[in-house]
Amino acid sequence: MSTMKTRAAVAWGPGQPLKIEEVDLELPKKGEVLVRITATGVCHTDAYTLSGADPEGIFPSILGHEGAGVVEAIGEGVTSVAVGDHVIPLYTPECGECKFCKSGKTNLCQAIRSTQGKGLMPDGTTRFSKDGEPIYHYMGTSTFAEHTVVPEIALAKVSKDAPLEEICLLGCGVTTGMGAVHNTAKVQAGDTVAVFGLGGIGLSVIIGAVQAKASRIIAIDINNDKETIAKQLGATDFINPKDFDKPIQEVIVEMTDGGVDFSFECIGNVKVMRSALEACHKGWGESVIIGVAGSGEEISTRPFQLVTGRVWRGSAFGGVKGRTELPDYVQRYLDGEFKLSTFITHTMGLDDINQAFDLMHEGKSIRTVIHYDR
Amino acid sequence: MSTMKTRAAVAWGPGQPLKIEEVDLELPKKGEVLVRITATGVCHTDAYTLSGADPEGIFPSILGHEGAGVVEAIGEGVTSVAVGDHVIPLYTPECGECKFCKSGKTNLCQAIRSTQGKGLMPDGTTRFSKDGEPIYHYMGTSTFAEHTVVPEIALAKVSKDAPLEEICLLGCGVTTGMGAVHNTAKVQAGDTVAVFGLGGIGLSVIIGAVQAKASRIIAIDINNDKETIAKQLGATDFINPKDFDKPIQEVIVEMTDGGVDFSFECIGNVKVMRSALEACHKGWGESVIIGVAGSGEEISTRPFQLVTGRVWRGSAFGGVKGRTELPDYVQRYLDGEFKLSTFITHTMGLDDINQAFDLMHEGKSIRTVIHYDR
Repeated sequence: MSTMKTRAAVAWGPGQPLKIEEVDLELPKKGEVLVRITATGVCHTDAYTLSGADPEGIFPSILGHEGAGVVEAIGEGVTSVAVGDHVIPLYTPECGECKFCKSGKTNLCQAIRSTQGKGLMPDGTTRFSKDGEPIYHYMGTSTFAEHTVVPEIALAKVSKDAPLEEICLLGCGVTTGMGAVHNTAKVQAGDTVAVFGLGGIGLSVIIGAVQAKASRIIAIDINNDKETIAKQLGATDFINPKDFDKPIQEVIVEMTDGGVDFSFECIGNVKVMRSALEACHKGWGESVIIGVAGSGEEISTRPFQLVTGRVWRGSAFGGVKGRTELPDYVQRYLDGEFKLSTFITHTMGLDDINQAFDLMHEGKSIRTVIHYDR
Repeated sequence: MSTMKTRAAVAWGPGQPLKIEEVDLELPKKGEVLVRITATGVCHTDAYTLSGADPEGIFPSILGHEGAGVVEAIGEGVTSVAVGDHVIPLYTPECGECKFCKSGKTNLCQAIRSTQGKGLMPDGTTRFSKDGEPIYHYMGTSTFAEHTVVPEIALAKVSKDAPLEEICLLGCGVTTGMGAVHNTAKVQAGDTVAVFGLGGIGLSVIIGAVQAKASRIIAIDINNDKETIAKQLGATDFINPKDFDKPIQEVIVEMTDGGVDFSFECIGNVKVMRSALEACHKGWGESVIIGVAGSGEEISTRPFQLVTGRVWRGSAFGGVKGRTELPDYVQRYLDGEFKLSTFITHTMGLDDINQAFDLMHEGKSIRTVIHYDR
C-alpha cells in the first residue's frame, strides 16, 4: 500500500472548527486519480455539513467540493486524464454508461452514488487516514486537502489557460446558477426572470439570465447591500421583501403584469420556494428550486397553482454534465463571456480556512477562495 | 328583450337536489350563440359545486359543462358558427387574442374569466331567469338546460357526422385525460406511465397513453372492479394500494426499476398527488395533476424530490385549445381511434338527472349521459 502525506483541513466532528493536519493519503487505485488541489472555494454546503445539521454528514472527514487542481498521478486504467492536466473535481460524476447518463435527460449519474454518500471511494474504502484511523471523503471530492484522490469519472479536464484559483468556482456555485438557467429552465431571449437570494448561486443565475437575453431580471434579497452587485451583473430590478406589507409573490405578479416566466430559488428556504413558484405567470411560468432545504423540511402550495399552468422543477449542479459540458464553461469564461472575480470577495491560505466560514456566516463574503500556495 | 322558455335542471341551493323547471332564457346578444343542448354528461365537478363545497359556487344556477348540441340562433357579429352547426360548449374558451391565447404556451384563455367566474355572461348579466329573478350560468356553459346561451369564443364547431350523445364527453373528461397525456406531459413511445384513479379522466389517460405507445401503463385504484375496464383499454398493470403495506409510490418505484416516466393524478386527493410525484423516476420523471382538490387543501413534498430531477405540473382541460383542437379530437373519434361508448355506463332523460348524481356518489357509474329527447 503506497501512501503519501498531505496537508488537509479535517472536520473531526459536527460543530467543531476544522483542524489543519498532516494526513496520510493512499495513492490512486484502479480508475482513480491523484489531484493536487491548488485552490478551492468554501461553499454553504460545506458549512451545512460541518454544522451537524446535515443528516448525511460523516465525521471525521475532509470537506470541500468546489476545487481545481493538477493531476499528479493516475491509477490503473485511467485514460481520460494524464499527469499535468488541469482538472475540476465533480461531486456529480459522469460515467457515461449508467441508465441516467445514457438517458440523455439528466446529469445525475448514479454510478458511484452509494459509496460517495458514505464518504467512501467506489471500492468501499477511504484513501485518507490519520494514525491508521480512516478519515472519510466528502461529496467524492474532499478539496480541503492539498492532495486528494477522486474517481476518474469525477474529473472534468479543462483548459490549462484558465487560472485555477478562479475556475474552481465552476466546480459548484457558478455552474449551478448558470446551468439552472440554460439547462434546467432553458430561458429564452425576452423571457422575464426572478431570482430569490443573491449569494453566489443567485448572482450566477443573473449572469445566466443576461447570457440568455432575458428582458427583465428581478433580483430579490433581504439584504439591500446586494443591490449594487446584482445590478452590476445585469439585474434590471432589485426588491427587498422587507419593504412590502404583502407577500413578495404578489409584488412580483403586479410588477410583471401576471408574473415572471421563470423564477429561481437560490436560498434553501421552503417558504421562499413557495413564493418563487407563486411569482410565476399563470399558464406557463416555471420555478426552479436550486437551494438545499434543511433536513425534513417540505414545500407546499395549492395544487391550483400547478393546474393553472405553473411548473415546479429543481436543479442539481445546474443540470450540467461535468465532463461533457464543464470544459465549455471554462472556455466561455476564457472568452470573456463572464467574470469569476466578481464572486471572489476574499482569498486566504488553508491555515485560515475557519475564517472563511466565519465570513460566510456573517454574510460578509460571496466566496472565499483558499489558495494552497499561501 | 327577446326571451324564450326552456327546460332546465336548476340548482336552487347547495346540497339540494336539482329541480326541473321551465325557465326564461334571453336570446343571444352580440357575440353570443343560442345552443340547443341535445346531450350532456354529468361530471364530478358538477357534484362538487352542487354539494356546496366549492367556495366559488353560485346559486341559483344551471350546472353542466360536458354537453353538445346544435346552434339555433346567433347574436350580432357571430361569424365562426352558423345555425345548424354542431357544437361543444367550452368552459375554457379560446378568444385567440388575449395574452394567454397569443402566447402559444397555454390553453387558459382569460378573455371572459372574471365574468364566467361570477356566473355571468361577458356583459355582466345572466340570460337565465325565473319569475324575473336571475339564475346564474355555470362554467360559462350551463348544459343542464335544453337551451343555453354561450359566448361564440366558447364554442367548438365539430363534425355533424359524430353522435352528439357521445361526443359531449369530449367537452370535459375524455379530452382532459387524453390531452394531459399529449399536450401537457407529451408522453412518447416507450415511456412508462402511472395513472392514479380510474374514473372517466383516468381511463381517458389510459387511452391517451396507448395512443402515445407507452411501453407500460400502470393503473391504480382502490376499487378492484376497475381492473377489467382499465386492462380492456390497454393498461398493462393494475394495482390496488390497499393490497400493500407500504406507500404505493414505493411499490411503483420497485416495479419499474426506479419509477415511471410520467404519472397522472386523476382524483383530486392531495395525498395521492404526492404519491404520484414520488412514483416518478429520479432525473426526469414528470407528474401531472389533473384532479381538482378540495378548497384550501395543499400539496407538499420534500424539495429534494424536485432537486433530483422530478417535475411537478398540472393540466386543465388537458391543455387542449378548444376551438383549434377539439374538432380534431372529434375527427379522431370518428376515425375509430378511440371509443366513447366505453365511458357511458348510463343514459337517462333530464327528469332523472338527480339519479345520475346518486350513481356517481355510489361509485356505480363512469359517466351518465342525459339525453334531452327523452
